[in-house]
Formats: sequence, structure tokens, C-alpha cells
Amino acid sequence: MEGKGEISSDSSAVMLELLHMEMVSLFSSLDHKECQSKLEQLGRRVGATMAEQMTRDIPRFKNELDVLVFVCKQFWQQAWHKPVDNLKTNHQDVYVLLDNSFKLLSKMSTSEQYKSQAALYLSFPCGLIKGALTTLGITCHVTADVTEMPSCTFQVKVTTQ
Amino acid sequence: MEGKGEISSDSSAVMLELLHMEMVSLFSSLDHKECQSKLEQLGRRVGATMAEQMTRDIPRFKNELDVLVFVCKQFWQQAWHKPVDNLKTNHQDVYVLLDNSFKLLSKMSTSEQYKSQAALYLSFPCGLIKGALTTLGITCHVTADVTEMPSCTFQVKVTTQ
Repeated sequence: MEGKGEISSDSSAVMLELLHMEMVSLFSSLDHKECQSKLEQLGRRVGATMAEQMTRDIPRFKNELDVLVFVCKQFWQQAWHKPVDNLKTNHQDVYVLLDNSFKLLSKMSTSEQYKSQAALYLSFPCGLIKGALTTLGITCHVTADVTEMPSCTFQVKVTTQ
Repeated sequence: MEGKGEISSDSSAVMLELLHMEMVSLFSSLDHKECQSKLEQLGRRVGATMAEQMTRDIPRFKNELDVLVFVCKQFWQQAWHKPVDNLKTNHQDVYVLLDNSFKLLSKMSTSEQYKSQAALYLSFPCGLIKGALTTLGITCHVTADVTEMPSCTFQVKVTTQ
């Protein structure tokens, strides 16, 4: 039996992706906006718990940028097995996180018709970021944009501190 | 920033557990049986796809036991980062899979009151096993039983071949 069946190096990431696909499909009978909202809520709760667990025993963050860097590195690594590829900021209230090969888009066709589908696949991770940041004291709006699949950006706009 | 925030070795397993918890909570407004059924269906679809992906390029299985061993080893490892601890069979149509520290139960209180809650947490993995086995040509019923948390058994009763 040894060697039968390929095991991916990131193991349960496969099941995670499939479970997420089922979530999208579960809510897809709702209208597009409501479906996005449900997935985002789900992400928010998961992100909040993850951030809480990960930061329980560490020193306080120095400032807002410090929190964002944590989300881009450790949090993203925990969630998607890789850090964010790039973080940009206007040094005021906007942060843009770029992921060149975002896990949940990686198996999707790159053709134009899948763009609206891609938006659904980014609702959960938008919620994930928002949940994590809120738990770490940053109130914000998070939106996502697909440039060229599977590359995407998440824009964080801090609303109050 | 380096070293801030603990990253578990099985990384996205954490998110998987949290997403599964959200699923249980999502369906928990339904009655117990319907909730179990929804989670089981979800597991079936995920298990079927995982088994299909994992066995796409491998030789055919020799027999029923060969399939069960695959599910206990490679499939369980892929899903839960560890193989099943023990597989017993009556050499007819019943197989019992024992997991001494089942992932989805590992953070649950061991007190008696959580036993019915535990049953909900085993619906998805029951579906997972059933989905995988069905995809690999084995029609069966799968039930789960918690002996002492977080240890549990899954009983596979083959119905036809």
C-alpha cells in the first residue's frame, strides 16, 4: 500500500479548499450580494478566532503598521501556507495586500467569465482579514480585486482606531 | 516582527477546524437529525472529491480491504494529518476504524454533556469516509461512536459491492 495516493505537502489545505467550495455552493442559491455577505461573516468569525489564538501570548503590537505586517506574514502563513507577497500603504489609512497566487483562486479558470465567480471566492478571505484586524483593534473595510487570476489584492481601509 | 504569533505545524488545519465549527453552528438551528444529515452530505461531497483527486493516477485497488487500508492511511493522513490508529474487520462486511485523538474532538470538553455535541462533530467525518468509499466503489453505511473523548470509532458496514 505504501505510496498509493498522492499526499500534498500542505495536507489539510486540500480539504479546506474543498470545504470552502462547498460553502460557496451552499450560499449560491442566495442573491450574489447576500451570498458574499454570508461568506464574509463566516470569514470574520474564523479570522477573529485565529487572530485571538495566535496573539494570546505575544507582546502588544507597537502600532497599526505592526498589526498589518503581522497579518501579512504570520496570519497569512497560518491561513494559506505563504505570506502575502507585497504590502503597500499610503501611510494614512489605506493598506493594499497583494497575493500573486491566491490559494482559493489557484484552481479557477483564468477566462473572463469566471470573474464574478472569483468575487465570491474572495468574500471569505476578505472577512478573514477584517475579523483578524478587528480583533487586533483595527476597525476597517476590506475589499478585494482580481487583477489577473490567481493574483489578487485586498484593500484595507481603516475607518477608526 | 519575526516570531510574533505562533504558527502551528499543521497550519491550515486550524482554519479547517474553525470553518468546520462554523458549519456545525450554521446548521445547528435545524433539528439534530437534519443538522447531522446536512453535515454528512457536506462531508460526502468533500470526501468524494478528495478520494478522486488522490487516486487519479494510481493502480486499481486489489480488493475491498485494500481500499479500506488506503482510507485509513493515506486518506486519513491527508484529511487529519495522521493515519487511523487501528482498523478491525470481521472479514465479512464490517470495518471499524479507531482514532485515538480525533482532530475535531480534541478541543472539546470531555464531560458527559458534550456527547450529543460530539455526535454533530462526527457527522462531517462520517460523510467524508462514505464519500471516499463510494467513489472507490464501496457502497456502505458509516456511523460513529465516541468512547472517551477525543477517541472515537467509525463503523463501516458495506451494503453491496
